[in-house]
Amino acid sequence: MTGAERLLAACRGEPVDATPLWIMRQAGGRLPGYLAMRERHSVMEISRTPELCAEVTVGPVDALGVDGAVLYADIMLLVGAMGVDVELTSDGPVIRRPVRSLADVQALRPVDPEADLGFVVEAIRRVRAELAGRAAVIGIAGGPFTLAAYLVEGAPSRDQLHARALMHADPATWHDLLERLTASTVAYVRAQEEAGAQVIQCFDTWAGSLTAAEYVGFVAPYARRILDAVAVPTIHHVARSSLLLDEVASAGGTVVGVDSRQDIAAARRTLGAARPVQGNLDPALVLAGSALARRGADEVLAAADGSGHVFNLGEAAPRDADPTVLRDVARHVHDRSAAARATVAEEVPAHA
Amino acid sequence: MTGAERLLAACRGEPVDATPLWIMRQAGGRLPGYLAMRERHSVMEISRTPELCAEVTVGPVDALGVDGAVLYADIMLLVGAMGVDVELTSDGPVIRRPVRSLADVQALRPVDPEADLGFVVEAIRRVRAELAGRAAVIGIAGGPFTLAAYLVEGAPSRDQLHARALMHADPATWHDLLERLTASTVAYVRAQEEAGAQVIQCFDTWAGSLTAAEYVGFVAPYARRILDAVAVPTIHHVARSSLLLDEVASAGGTVVGVDSRQDIAAARRTLGAARPVQGNLDPALVLAGSALARRGADEVLAAADGSGHVFNLGEAAPRDADPTVLRDVARHVHDRSAAARATVAEEVPAHA
Repeated sequence: MTGAERLLAACRGEPVDATPLWIMRQAGGRLPGYLAMRERHSVMEISRTPELCAEVTVGPVDALGVDGAVLYADIMLLVGAMGVDVELTSDGPVIRRPVRSLADVQALRPVDPEADLGFVVEAIRRVRAELAGRAAVIGIAGGPFTLAAYLVEGAPSRDQLHARALMHADPATWHDLLERLTASTVAYVRAQEEAGAQVIQCFDTWAGSLTAAEYVGFVAPYARRILDAVAVPTIHHVARSSLLLDEVASAGGTVVGVDSRQDIAAARRTLGAARPVQGNLDPALVLAGSALARRGADEVLAAADGSGHVFNLGEAAPRDADPTVLRDVARHVHDRSAAARATVAEEVPAHA
Repeated sequence: MTGAERLLAACRGEPVDATPLWIMRQAGGRLPGYLAMRERHSVMEISRTPELCAEVTVGPVDALGVDGAVLYADIMLLVGAMGVDVELTSDGPVIRRPVRSLADVQALRPVDPEADLGFVVEAIRRVRAELAGRAAVIGIAGGPFTLAAYLVEGAPSRDQLHARALMHADPATWHDLLERLTASTVAYVRAQEEAGAQVIQCFDTWAGSLTAAEYVGFVAPYARRILDAVAVPTIHHVARSSLLLDEVASAGGTVVGVDSRQDIAAARRTLGAARPVQGNLDPALVLAGSALARRGADEVLAAADGSGHVFNLGEAAPRDADPTVLRDVARHVHDRSAAARATVAEEVPAHA
């Protein structure tokens, strides 16, 4: 199978020759090609130049041997296009004038992806053409809580307290904000699909700060609209989602992301064996070196138990992850899972 | 009952006239007395001057009406005294030369609290004398994982990946580091107790990043030694500890802190009704204003169900929390819980 076939089949729970994988934040980090490009261009220049963005997006497919090419694009590009002044710093996105009042919310403008984010759409077209099936093209969107939390907080935060306070103190403003973010996100993921994205991952990174009641009442309906907006498979990823896994899965996503704090076997029991999952190698094991990372990958493969599993880290790769370790993990996941399938295939006739 | 009697009785699970409370990060924030002092002195100057430190520590007792006075001292003062160059920034402690090798660990020196942190010891003596029982004196220590994680990471981080990688890749260095941190912390909390601290809270803020196996193998034995080192009641607080609550409670603490993501009624069922608990109003509700904060406090009081409960927020108060809201919450907790006890007291004879 080609990488794209393998990844798409696993997203649909269909048989594969080996467990497919990609790595969150695989484009970037310490890949030599990326480091060389960053000497000449800022993150924003790369994002806004389809040729450069496509190169950075495709790079890890050959360098690491992964089955998916995830679009190199900050999730905050969308809110930038909605009229918010976002600065990407080494600590994360910073918004000097946070969005906290109804007037702030009403100043947000809807996004026309071709007009406002045409460079992303064009980058996807190029990536799809260049890959020619070697790996699946993975489009991205920030989840509704995560985008809203950045807008309200103005900076990365541990507990998103101001966003959660707004939710409770002024629910009308909250819902207006989420409505606008959702409408623009729906247009954005549809444009990515039309340009050639074969999978869309929705990263609702911060939603693990919410109680189940908060998630269901204030976020899930918007997540559902985004995940239902495209025909291609979607991956719904919320970090630190142990206490919310059911609610996140109910909100949608062809595939449910499982973070590294969870036992992926237990997650599959909760979700039902038919629901595809993605995850969940601990990024700390990548920093701990190839031997420990490979051993961790074996445990993930055993716990996830075969079909309907997209291998990934449980969270984004550390920015200083050694590409050699990531490549070792990728090769190991393919080899081990292919060997396990061959063994099963041999055993079946013996027992038949 | 005086504030000190009320808080100490609740820590021991004994009857009280009203539910006692204090608030994590109550000293500081936007209290007028503190803001005035900060115009003249840096955080470090206040910490290192017993007269100023005592004033800031005592201030909230009258300004907010709480039953405990928690020492105004950054948890990183201890590692500063061990020879680490720590800078307190608005984003948290920063260590320009992180501790990652065995040589780095072996360069740490043991702390003699009277000689190295005499200003803290003297501040506690003053606070105890000034309060004269109006509120209990709460000493503090950083938990072993949290101190180690700051030293290894060099800065606040979301997932403490480098600390967790060290744990797995080089367990000998990890255990040496924890051994040294624990020995100094034990000396530090004993010195605080001797100076008059009536309760010690151990803040292992970041330990919620660990799996249960990691916590049990790499952290719990050290936490236990610290919590067992004093005769006064201890409070063991780990943020985001839903998945670890049993292991944290087993490691020790007269009182177990419950964060705001947990249902404190469920936590009490897990821990057993006899184990005192602390918590767990959501700090976001403090930002959402007095009405929502009071309603949230009612829910916490109902769920915690009476004796053996120290009311607090589930995490530290937001730095921009309105002191008026905190005072309203304190008064409300006292009034409601006293009224509930009076009702029960009236009802009992009626049924007898």
